[in-house]
Amino acid sequence: MKELFGKIPKIEYEGPASTNPLAFKYYNPEEELGGKTMAEHLRFSMAYWHTFTADGSDPFGAGTMQRPWNDINDPMEVAKKRVEAAFELMNKLGFSYFCFHDRDIAPEGKTLEETNQNLDEIVALLKEKMKETGIKLLWGTANMFTHPRFVHGAATSPNADVFAYAAAQVKKALEITNELGGENYVFWGGREGYETLLNTNMGLELDNLARFLQMAVDYAQKIGFKGQFLIEPKPKEPTKHQYDFDVAAVFAFLKKYGLDKYFKTNIEANHATLAGHNFQHELRFARLNGILGSVDANQGDMLLGWDTDQFPTNIYTTTFAMYEILKNGGLAPGGLNFDAKVRRPSFEAVDLAYGHIAGMDAFAQGLKVAYKLLEDGVIEEFITNRYASYDHGIGARIIKKELGFEELADYALNHDQIVNESGRQEMLESIINQYLIES
Amino acid sequence: MKELFGKIPKIEYEGPASTNPLAFKYYNPEEELGGKTMAEHLRFSMAYWHTFTADGSDPFGAGTMQRPWNDINDPMEVAKKRVEAAFELMNKLGFSYFCFHDRDIAPEGKTLEETNQNLDEIVALLKEKMKETGIKLLWGTANMFTHPRFVHGAATSPNADVFAYAAAQVKKALEITNELGGENYVFWGGREGYETLLNTNMGLELDNLARFLQMAVDYAQKIGFKGQFLIEPKPKEPTKHQYDFDVAAVFAFLKKYGLDKYFKTNIEANHATLAGHNFQHELRFARLNGILGSVDANQGDMLLGWDTDQFPTNIYTTTFAMYEILKNGGLAPGGLNFDAKVRRPSFEAVDLAYGHIAGMDAFAQGLKVAYKLLEDGVIEEFITNRYASYDHGIGARIIKKELGFEELADYALNHDQIVNESGRQEMLESIINQYLIES
Amino acid sequence: MKELFGKIPKIEYEGPASTNPLAFKYYNPEEELGGKTMAEHLRFSMAYWHTFTADGSDPFGAGTMQRPWNDINDPMEVAKKRVEAAFELMNKLGFSYFCFHDRDIAPEGKTLEETNQNLDEIVALLKEKMKETGIKLLWGTANMFTHPRFVHGAATSPNADVFAYAAAQVKKALEITNELGGENYVFWGGREGYETLLNTNMGLELDNLARFLQMAVDYAQKIGFKGQFLIEPKPKEPTKHQYDFDVAAVFAFLKKYGLDKYFKTNIEANHATLAGHNFQHELRFARLNGILGSVDANQGDMLLGWDTDQFPTNIYTTTFAMYEILKNGGLAPGGLNFDAKVRRPSFEAVDLAYGHIAGMDAFAQGLKVAYKLLEDGVIEEFITNRYASYDHGIGARIIKKELGFEELADYALNHDQIVNESGRQEMLESIINQYLIES
Amino acid sequence: MKELFGKIPKIEYEGPASTNPLAFKYYNPEEELGGKTMAEHLRFSMAYWHTFTADGSDPFGAGTMQRPWNDINDPMEVAKKRVEAAFELMNKLGFSYFCFHDRDIAPEGKTLEETNQNLDEIVALLKEKMKETGIKLLWGTANMFTHPRFVHGAATSPNADVFAYAAAQVKKALEITNELGGENYVFWGGREGYETLLNTNMGLELDNLARFLQMAVDYAQKIGFKGQFLIEPKPKEPTKHQYDFDVAAVFAFLKKYGLDKYFKTNIEANHATLAGHNFQHELRFARLNGILGSVDANQGDMLLGWDTDQFPTNIYTTTFAMYEILKNGGLAPGGLNFDAKVRRPSFEAVDLAYGHIAGMDAFAQGLKVAYKLLEDGVIEEFITNRYASYDHGIGARIIKKELGFEELADYALNHDQIVNESGRQEMLESIINQYLIES
Repeated sequence: MKELFGKIPKIEYEGPASTNPLAFKYYNPEEELGGKTMAEHLRFSMAYWHTFTADGSDPFGAGTMQRPWNDINDPMEVAKKRVEAAFELMNKLGFSYFCFHDRDIAPEGKTLEETNQNLDEIVALLKEKMKETGIKLLWGTANMFTHPRFVHGAATSPNADVFAYAAAQVKKALEITNELGGENYVFWGGREGYETLLNTNMGLELDNLARFLQMAVDYAQKIGFKGQFLIEPKPKEPTKHQYDFDVAAVFAFLKKYGLDKYFKTNIEANHATLAGHNFQHELRFARLNGILGSVDANQGDMLLGWDTDQFPTNIYTTTFAMYEILKNGGLAPGGLNFDAKVRRPSFEAVDLAYGHIAGMDAFAQGLKVAYKLLEDGVIEEFITNRYASYDHGIGARIIKKELGFEELADYALNHDQIVNESGRQEMLESIINQYLIES
Repeated sequence: MKELFGKIPKIEYEGPASTNPLAFKYYNPEEELGGKTMAEHLRFSMAYWHTFTADGSDPFGAGTMQRPWNDINDPMEVAKKRVEAAFELMNKLGFSYFCFHDRDIAPEGKTLEETNQNLDEIVALLKEKMKETGIKLLWGTANMFTHPRFVHGAATSPNADVFAYAAAQVKKALEITNELGGENYVFWGGREGYETLLNTNMGLELDNLARFLQMAVDYAQKIGFKGQFLIEPKPKEPTKHQYDFDVAAVFAFLKKYGLDKYFKTNIEANHATLAGHNFQHELRFARLNGILGSVDANQGDMLLGWDTDQFPTNIYTTTFAMYEILKNGGLAPGGLNFDAKVRRPSFEAVDLAYGHIAGMDAFAQGLKVAYKLLEDGVIEEFITNRYASYDHGIGARIIKKELGFEELADYALNHDQIVNESGRQEMLESIINQYLIES
Repeated sequence: MKELFGKIPKIEYEGPASTNPLAFKYYNPEEELGGKTMAEHLRFSMAYWHTFTADGSDPFGAGTMQRPWNDINDPMEVAKKRVEAAFELMNKLGFSYFCFHDRDIAPEGKTLEETNQNLDEIVALLKEKMKETGIKLLWGTANMFTHPRFVHGAATSPNADVFAYAAAQVKKALEITNELGGENYVFWGGREGYETLLNTNMGLELDNLARFLQMAVDYAQKIGFKGQFLIEPKPKEPTKHQYDFDVAAVFAFLKKYGLDKYFKTNIEANHATLAGHNFQHELRFARLNGILGSVDANQGDMLLGWDTDQFPTNIYTTTFAMYEILKNGGLAPGGLNFDAKVRRPSFEAVDLAYGHIAGMDAFAQGLKVAYKLLEDGVIEEFITNRYASYDHGIGARIIKKELGFEELADYALNHDQIVNESGRQEMLESIINQYLIES
Repeated sequence: MKELFGKIPKIEYEGPASTNPLAFKYYNPEEELGGKTMAEHLRFSMAYWHTFTADGSDPFGAGTMQRPWNDINDPMEVAKKRVEAAFELMNKLGFSYFCFHDRDIAPEGKTLEETNQNLDEIVALLKEKMKETGIKLLWGTANMFTHPRFVHGAATSPNADVFAYAAAQVKKALEITNELGGENYVFWGGREGYETLLNTNMGLELDNLARFLQMAVDYAQKIGFKGQFLIEPKPKEPTKHQYDFDVAAVFAFLKKYGLDKYFKTNIEANHATLAGHNFQHELRFARLNGILGSVDANQGDMLLGWDTDQFPTNIYTTTFAMYEILKNGGLAPGGLNFDAKVRRPSFEAVDLAYGHIAGMDAFAQGLKVAYKLLEDGVIEEFITNRYASYDHGIGARIIKKELGFEELADYALNHDQIVNESGRQEMLESIINQYLIES
């Protein structure tokens, strides 16, 4: 069969000295760090929607992307050609995982029944290709934000028929994810939120969202789906306010409705910054609360107020992300999914290679720097020393909950001339730079 | 005794037609709405720090405020004169409540012991004045952010001696709040957060914060303090990241550490917007989760990225705030505390009257509009109709948890041509304007 | 002919007491203020694109809008039906003006020639309708951002063929605007900017933009177009950085290239806030520099970082906008163009009526409040008094440029104990509220 | 004399392999790049205010900084000791330049006369130290924002006496800058703006600002000051809106008042981002308009909305800054002034060394990367090719202004099937990473 990405060769590791723009400089999948290969550490996944389905349109402009399969008239023929394209490119770039929304892989039909048939047909094709190539499904999800029926939400719609439709859709998405051996299942509630409180019963909507997720858990058990459930936080866009604002909001929700044992989070860098946090903060918060499940690897523009989903190329960000991931013992069964799109002006097919190479190399370099930082213990040791007062004496007794305000007040009256030590932020930032350049 | 605010008369209600800038136009404390007076609905409180302690300095400039008592040399004499000033102004403006930090009312001494003695002396004076005037303490709190010892936090400091000091300070603050009949006690964690994750053990810090709050609960029970505990969320400033980022983050924290039965939230308008929410959202979220305790009434500048603490004059905001408060059945034992400061260029003493009048009138008008909206049921009825599909049929069965994905999928296959209705945001906004102008 | 907006009656002024949601409460076109009718003051214009062309799609969802004419298959038939719809709705809502982009009114053909023919055909139809109804063209413009050819910009494209194409397109747009008696012509440079400086020759691009605008001026003179040229500032979106960032950036550009005598600005509320300014600031800055030409009336959501283009319903904002416009002696030949779209969930045709009524009433009320403020002179008098020191003595001599640093230093050495007066912001805000409610 | 910074040794270049935190890893002042030493390229300057005057206080907390000279009671003795401290630290860190505000170096007296005498005394001391060490004054400026007299602005105050005072102050500041051989003079208008338009005569204020600057130009000529005048843009903080919002606003102002031949800009990284631009954008815009004068080197936190003035440690930012500076032919007579402060928790004296080392090393590395990028021509060549269509044919004729809309339309009608090329952003970002790591 004729290659769709003829101009893109198989991308290999050539090392930093290479000037070949279609080669990895830092990502060497077989290189070992601490008993795991880079590929095992990073678990890169390609996002079907951005890379194969999206056309580069934005709110002010039509599509620009050169994707030959999208020029076919019959939607099912597009869907089939798209499968070919996907596996060809994933192979060339050395991906072991991919992710999809149900509607990325197969078009809606006139009825729900027809839609499900479309899905079945493509799923069979995907299964074959997966077997052939060894590429696996990191996670599946259901797109419940594009179609007008979801204009007011899916599980949080004021219309019970929409809730039912969404249930049917997730049921099917769970089935096909299971069928394809998906290791996780993601919920991103793009329309689960509100445009204005003037017309919104927020209490009912949140209760319904919890009811919906519980049904998903129940159904997964029924069909034997063993994958991890994930919720992906995002504060806004498309909806003015989204309920899954950030990791803390998700955690509060899970706790309130007793769902915390079933769900972890899928954390996206650009969603973190839109919520007013940096990426590392969200990863850290999730890690400490046992809900760091998977990552949508991309980056935003800090001067723009929407989700730009750029390929992640900032090595500071990838370093601190990998730092948290290493401290988490890795992400498995989650992974690093490139929820990233080439810029609208990067419309040639070869830009898909450049984009993924840029992101993979940036994460590979981030991994190396983070690994070295942990190996040398520079940050960890500093922190251990900084909090040493809780290892003994009054501090240790605080930790053990042996003291109350009265005992502490007695102590304080005799220790009220307090000496603190510098936090050394500037020195630490300088050390990070040295590691970043020299690792 | 000579009046300190000689130029400020007793402020009375004169109605909208009055052109006297030193009169209430909308706040008529005795006017009744639904069986409660305006004063009972609004429970206005004056903030000791902004109004009596602060001098108008900002990061780029020295103090400007004309506050004669601050020109005295001896700090304890300042503190005493300040008490006089406070009660004179609260009386003139018709306040029934005030709030303070320990360090607002009395200066630190050389030792903790001396500091506590200073407090005792002023507390005695306050108690006398409160008895004399009938003015009550809405809440007390401890300032654990100004002194250099708290440079790295209080309960979250890496230095156990600071934890102990903070415990001693809150112990004392609880005692004096109790002594003065305070109806609530507030925690605002200005330094409970981090500047950089490079030097931070976030897990230990959060655990310690929970330990600290549990100790406060325990001690309150011991001394018989019956007031409500409140946590005040703020995302950032002074600290880069504060743990009590927003109401959701606080709720997550309380749930995780089993503290949700002891704490509600004190919600500040300007903190809400700094966290990326509008004020009404935070009130709504807290109300739905049973943790709407009290309000810090002010407003921010949406184009500025710091806490400007302006007097609240936007009637849209006060209307929607009062809407939530009315739906909450009021705020008691919480209240509306003007955590607001006159602008640095509004440095004359009479500006304190203008500022509070502006805020009180804006909230009074907001109350009237919100009350009328609820009385006429315009928003509530619209919402009831909008969600009617959950009152019967498939919707009602979803609510009752009688269905799972399978039953819903069966239903959806037969009901997949969905008809939604408009959310009517523009019409509703137009109605709000009419109520705002005509109420 | 069957009405397209059968459910929408002719909208009339019924006054604030009316509970008919399809009536004006504040906009009474014939009401006089200071010798002009409200209609003359406000010069409302309907935006063809949002109201007749757009379908409600957003980056995450398909179109939702119920616009029967968009369901026709033939693009030219759509375009013709759209003209009917436009004039029917404008008539019902009492509009005297409209605005369009070339591509809103007629579809692109396969060639530029065919595209121009399409335009000619629709322009003939519009002309007829305009004659029939008396509705006029406030301004025309060319859409040079939607088509992929403009992916890198139009006048600032790195591709000279695109520059040429853009020239051809504006030439035609100027001709049809002239043909239809358009009173202004607008340039909004949606793609005139950059995505990354890594690939951008900013100097050349800015020079080319100036060359392009000069050509437009020259051609307008040639064809006798007497309308006002306008540039519409916007800081970002779709492009990461747009050259016409705000009014100041436009003014700097015009001055640098000697274009300031030919161009004024078309100021949009939502663009102002995206640039970090409030709407009034941009109007004021433009007014003071003689470049306040026209207004795109809408509002943004201050918590969202993109152009939401909501219908303007905030009466504070409309009041201060009308304040500047009254001080400007009105906007003519500019006007208030509703560059606003109903929310995606407000998808019924009748929502177009609600949206425009909401906006027109909000501006009418804003006009009344602003007019009253100016009539009573409350703000103006305060300001006059505040700057009185420049009316005489040393101040007057500064204004007359009679003094230099030496004379002023001599004066200051003898007048160094300076007494300032309060800026009274809180009092003024309170007065505004009273006017807003009582006007 | 006893050293004030005893714990800080002379900081030397030890290279990247060094683990000594008190050594330069990348800044080797004598290393040559293209015929200039690093020191000549970078022209580092220390900021007197942050490093020697500031105490670490913030809006919520008292000073924390360990600066022994600030503990002296007599303000003039503090000022003298501060001079010693300054030259000791500048020497140890290898600085050749410093900058100051008048009020940083000497305290205000009771009268303007006394204030000027204080200045004279310290200036004499500085002059001596400068002679002794060879350290030079990059620029002087006047602090017209701290004292309450400037509460409403200096040159833009509504009070003419304040204008006069400001004139006297700048007169003196110019004289001492001249006396000390200052190479530039800076205006930062911290209070030149407004808090609210409700009380502001913006037209008069801007005219007065221009009058003031013209007087400064006139006086400089009179006293023979040959230094470059600089205006430092900042959008907000302390003032809600500052007139010198960004470089474009400054350029517009200069053009309008005919001051553009006398003034360039002093561009601060953190001010750029607060204005919604990245640092490189502001440098580029200034460079293209011939007004790139000097740089305030620091960085902000993109998630915080105020001026954090952190030491610049982001190598992406320093690389792109140095790129523009190299393209500008350097900054002389301007320089890189560290308008940066150690974090409040970095309160030990040695943190001043860490902070400056962090910043100097980050700029040195940025210089090396930028220099290599320019040497290899990777970006420049890409750009040259990208715009090649303007080098010949229709493009070249556009540049030469030989064509108008008519000729271009003729051309376009025959060239309407346009082929663009990808902008290759992802590829370019990947190349930057490789240079950043490998340079």
